[in-house]
Amino acid sequence: MESALTNSSSSLAGRKVNFSSPRGFFTKFRTKCKETFFPDDPFKPISQEPNRLMKAKMALEYFVPVFQWLPKYNLQKLKYDVLAGITITSLAVPQGISYANLASIPPIIGLYSSFVPPFVYALLGSSNTLAVGTVAACSLLIAETIGEDMAKEDPTLYLHLIFTATFITGVFQFTLGFLRLGILVDFLSHSTITGFMGGTAIIILLQQLKGVFGLVHFTHKTDVVSVLHSVFSHRQEWKWQSALAGICFLAFLQTTRYIKKIKPKLFWVSAMGPMVVVLVGCLVAYLVKGAEHGIQTVGPLKKGLNPPSIQYLNFDAKYLPLVIKAGIVTGLIAMAEGIAIGRSFAVMKNEQTDGNKEMIAFGLMNVIGSFTSCYLTTGPFSKTAVNYNAGTKTPMSNVVMGICMMLVLLFLAPLFSYTPLVGLSAIIMSAMLGLIDYEEMYHLFKVDKFDFLVCMSAFFGVSFLSMDYGLIISVGFSIIRALLYVARPSSCKLGRIPNSVMFRDIEQYPAAEEMLGYIILQMGSPIFFANSTYVREKILRTIRDEPADVEFLLLDLSGVSSIDMTGMETLLEVRRTLMSKDIKMVIINPRFEVLEKMMLSHFVEKVGKEYVFLSIDDAVQACRFNLSTAKPEQSY
Amino acid sequence: MESALTNSSSSLAGRKVNFSSPRGFFTKFRTKCKETFFPDDPFKPISQEPNRLMKAKMALEYFVPVFQWLPKYNLQKLKYDVLAGITITSLAVPQGISYANLASIPPIIGLYSSFVPPFVYALLGSSNTLAVGTVAACSLLIAETIGEDMAKEDPTLYLHLIFTATFITGVFQFTLGFLRLGILVDFLSHSTITGFMGGTAIIILLQQLKGVFGLVHFTHKTDVVSVLHSVFSHRQEWKWQSALAGICFLAFLQTTRYIKKIKPKLFWVSAMGPMVVVLVGCLVAYLVKGAEHGIQTVGPLKKGLNPPSIQYLNFDAKYLPLVIKAGIVTGLIAMAEGIAIGRSFAVMKNEQTDGNKEMIAFGLMNVIGSFTSCYLTTGPFSKTAVNYNAGTKTPMSNVVMGICMMLVLLFLAPLFSYTPLVGLSAIIMSAMLGLIDYEEMYHLFKVDKFDFLVCMSAFFGVSFLSMDYGLIISVGFSIIRALLYVARPSSCKLGRIPNSVMFRDIEQYPAAEEMLGYIILQMGSPIFFANSTYVREKILRTIRDEPADVEFLLLDLSGVSSIDMTGMETLLEVRRTLMSKDIKMVIINPRFEVLEKMMLSHFVEKVGKEYVFLSIDDAVQACRFNLSTAKPEQSY
Repeated sequence: MESALTNSSSSLAGRKVNFSSPRGFFTKFRTKCKETFFPDDPFKPISQEPNRLMKAKMALEYFVPVFQWLPKYNLQKLKYDVLAGITITSLAVPQGISYANLASIPPIIGLYSSFVPPFVYALLGSSNTLAVGTVAACSLLIAETIGEDMAKEDPTLYLHLIFTATFITGVFQFTLGFLRLGILVDFLSHSTITGFMGGTAIIILLQQLKGVFGLVHFTHKTDVVSVLHSVFSHRQEWKWQSALAGICFLAFLQTTRYIKKIKPKLFWVSAMGPMVVVLVGCLVAYLVKGAEHGIQTVGPLKKGLNPPSIQYLNFDAKYLPLVIKAGIVTGLIAMAEGIAIGRSFAVMKNEQTDGNKEMIAFGLMNVIGSFTSCYLTTGPFSKTAVNYNAGTKTPMSNVVMGICMMLVLLFLAPLFSYTPLVGLSAIIMSAMLGLIDYEEMYHLFKVDKFDFLVCMSAFFGVSFLSMDYGLIISVGFSIIRALLYVARPSSCKLGRIPNSVMFRDIEQYPAAEEMLGYIILQMGSPIFFANSTYVREKILRTIRDEPADVEFLLLDLSGVSSIDMTGMETLLEVRRTLMSKDIKMVIINPRFEVLEKMMLSHFVEKVGKEYVFLSIDDAVQACRFNLSTAKPEQSY
Repeated sequence: MESALTNSSSSLAGRKVNFSSPRGFFTKFRTKCKETFFPDDPFKPISQEPNRLMKAKMALEYFVPVFQWLPKYNLQKLKYDVLAGITITSLAVPQGISYANLASIPPIIGLYSSFVPPFVYALLGSSNTLAVGTVAACSLLIAETIGEDMAKEDPTLYLHLIFTATFITGVFQFTLGFLRLGILVDFLSHSTITGFMGGTAIIILLQQLKGVFGLVHFTHKTDVVSVLHSVFSHRQEWKWQSALAGICFLAFLQTTRYIKKIKPKLFWVSAMGPMVVVLVGCLVAYLVKGAEHGIQTVGPLKKGLNPPSIQYLNFDAKYLPLVIKAGIVTGLIAMAEGIAIGRSFAVMKNEQTDGNKEMIAFGLMNVIGSFTSCYLTTGPFSKTAVNYNAGTKTPMSNVVMGICMMLVLLFLAPLFSYTPLVGLSAIIMSAMLGLIDYEEMYHLFKVDKFDFLVCMSAFFGVSFLSMDYGLIISVGFSIIRALLYVARPSSCKLGRIPNSVMFRDIEQYPAAEEMLGYIILQMGSPIFFANSTYVREKILRTIRDEPADVEFLLLDLSGVSSIDMTGMETLLEVRRTLMSKDIKMVIINPRFEVLEKMMLSHFVEKVGKEYVFLSIDDAVQACRFNLSTAKPEQSY
């Protein structure tokens, strides 16, 4: 009786399931590890190279990308890179000062941060477009985490803690890159980042009202309610001159952005905008002796290059938890942003970036930065976009920016001390307005409501709670979604497409014909502990809902990428339940990994090899033959 | 040029991809919710019933299962249930006293806990085999969480907090059941439970050394190191008489278990064992006036039924966090254990249990229990196994047990006050020895190393750290595993099985033939933010590793159960990269949900409908025709 199904299937020569012995544990383990940590298999070309010297050269080129592009460098490329480097410097100066202001640290630190890190990135970075610099969101977040109270009470200690956090960020990023844990960044989804950026832009925008209205008293909290309350409760401090200047500057900057949007070739108008605002602001403040009229300016900026700061790193146990939290959270966000931005622009130029290499580059950039009076840097969107538009060809543009910044620090820094705060506020506001991606949000709403939820939870979480909570909630939703995918895998009933041997979802293809007495279920994703109860319910429900008598349940496992002990036990449990109803369970096309486990755990023996088929069509043919001859009662 | 591929595919009439308009959001949302929370679709038969009265009756039967089985009850069934009920009572008395001891509460509470809850379960429970009672692991865990220091310092407050924790457990379980969140229990995998049970058994076993050696001073910690240190550092307290008695009792109990194992029909020998130990122990202790010779006994047990305890529930803010933690953690474990055990035995009898109903039953059982001087109850393994072996037919056996316990409480309770602690220790040890499932662990090791890791992390975490950390670590690993499944979905290269239109994994089926110029990749599980980078790397790597020139990349999406915005953008990104290498990307058999999203986000428009096929074979035929006529440069 056992051979009832085999008889017919043996007529289909060469179409048998391959039950040969499973691979050893270490083979599987190595494959798994490789897929998990080295999906891009970077060392293959190196290991295939026979010549030892060439091998070493290739490894060097791999680990230090500058050796890849520098030998091919030429004057033509240099022309573009110099132009791009000068353009991004004109953005780096005002942004550096503004974002340092946002982080409540001396503005000169912002300028220092655009000098050393670009050189490090130029050596190690894998993107040809990325421009290095500080970012608004992380500047605010680092200040929020370490605490702005401390910035007021003990600014020196606060600054040292910022350096320490930057050091920790660097070590963290480097370690992740070295351990090839880019997988962590994968869990910051596009939707999370869109929402987080939007929410951050909102709170940073509102923070700028302090500068625009020239307020002296202001809240340290960042959420929308506290900030708006703070702005309106200090109405007596509002200065109309400041507000007017702010509106003019903002209108000017938005106009330059608009020009760029209409005529992309005029991108340099928008890129120079912030510098113009700073220069005009300085000039006006200097001429009208602003300080005497209550116009707040940046204050003294010393000439000179970055002083060493390695001696300031503070690992006092009292502050360490705070500093570690700040370092890791900002490190993760900065990295995700930098990698995502680098990748987006690389795709536009049909180039590749390497996430793990980028992490190592960012990590070393921040470690060395923390030794040389810089704070957290990554690849900001605005600078990178300008760099791209300016036609940069290689990371050399970062070197050019570094050299320009050196000149600024050596000779021009004191000039910028007259920069009015209202000008900086306008620059930040203009940058932030570009970061709220309404269109993307609307697109998410239309296509995928859960993605929209993830995005909105980050957006509103950041705006109304705090930056870290917003991020955690959003990532939490993303992970719940990922878990729901596996906890409730989709499955569907198949029917035969007329005049073919294809079986497709009967809901999707209404023309597909179901066969009397058969239920063909296509399972999806892995079957394992997290969804085994569901899979069981789903199968039993499908059979219960079937109006006609069912004689065969065909489980198409082509889409089942993996199975665990609980999953196999569930299938056996289902089989037992079906047996009591005289229904036979047939397994179709288990994948390599799944079949291996089924062999190891004797699942196949229990089910019977003659109940495992290579295709639905084979199974249906074998069952049809069997249907009239074998009685289920006997065959078990 | 655009129609190059269409021309040929149109010859395959009726085999076209169905591009009809996507379903509305609410249709999809309802389906999703139903699949997530009502996978068993319990209300379908009720809603299909036309008669209103019948409808109400069916609903009542659904929500209060006693109405399902009581009308069909008969004398024959009663005979079995009475026998089973008496047998489990003989286990309930010693276990009740022992586990109360483990929880550091008065032993009478253990007896009370076997009186009220069984009646509640009999009304609402969906399993015919489950026997209600207290469990060792949760008894110890609740004591560990609330703190045994308090048990010493203020036993009354401690007891009240235990009642409160039980109340919270009940509310929590009921809420989960009512909200149909059985999905949470799914994440406690079989491996986690095996490891957790084994680890708990080890630490409870070691705890019993206190009773066996008659120690007075003992640590409050539960980890192996502390307990062993405590036992050996108090060597001067060891009492050989106690140890000898303990070893005799344990040997007797293990012999009864062995008898049961050899002759399953003699299960009652093993079931009566603990009662015999208690009675013999009482007799000996009474005869030799044990208390005078330093034999520790249970101490006074009052006659009488459960007093009300609702007035003792203590929601003081000072203890609330502790109590909530204890209630929720023990509630989750008790529930997972109870549901898993109920289900395992139901499957053996070809019956069904309903996880959500069980949660509601457990929840009400604990809420009402907390009002009537009971502490945490669920379905323990030992009692349920005995109940099953005794041939119980319905939850009536729980009612019989409840009645027997009533008689014990009313008339016999004081007798048990002579029970020597060493006897209880032996009973617990014997029960725990049965809970360490070496065979299952070895099986896990052989079949699935990651499952084994999950199991061992619970086992060693519980033994060497603490129960909650062990559990958290193990669940953490399970979730990482679930996330890894989606972050690194398996994919494979397909080839044609000779003389067929089937395409299968070339690694699994070495006979499958690859076709020159084509790469056919079968993707698995959803493509979304968590794996989009990986999917991209994997595709590009496969193409890079191909020795011959590639002209077509065929992506078989049959196994892709879902896709999100990031996933679609990644595929578009891959397509752009391929275009620059003159490789065409073809999409094969997207599922219903995936195709819907692809239509909504205009993915299909961007790729071109003529590049989407229903089967690999169709695509290959269309491409073959196209290969010689269309030039890729022109068609884009």
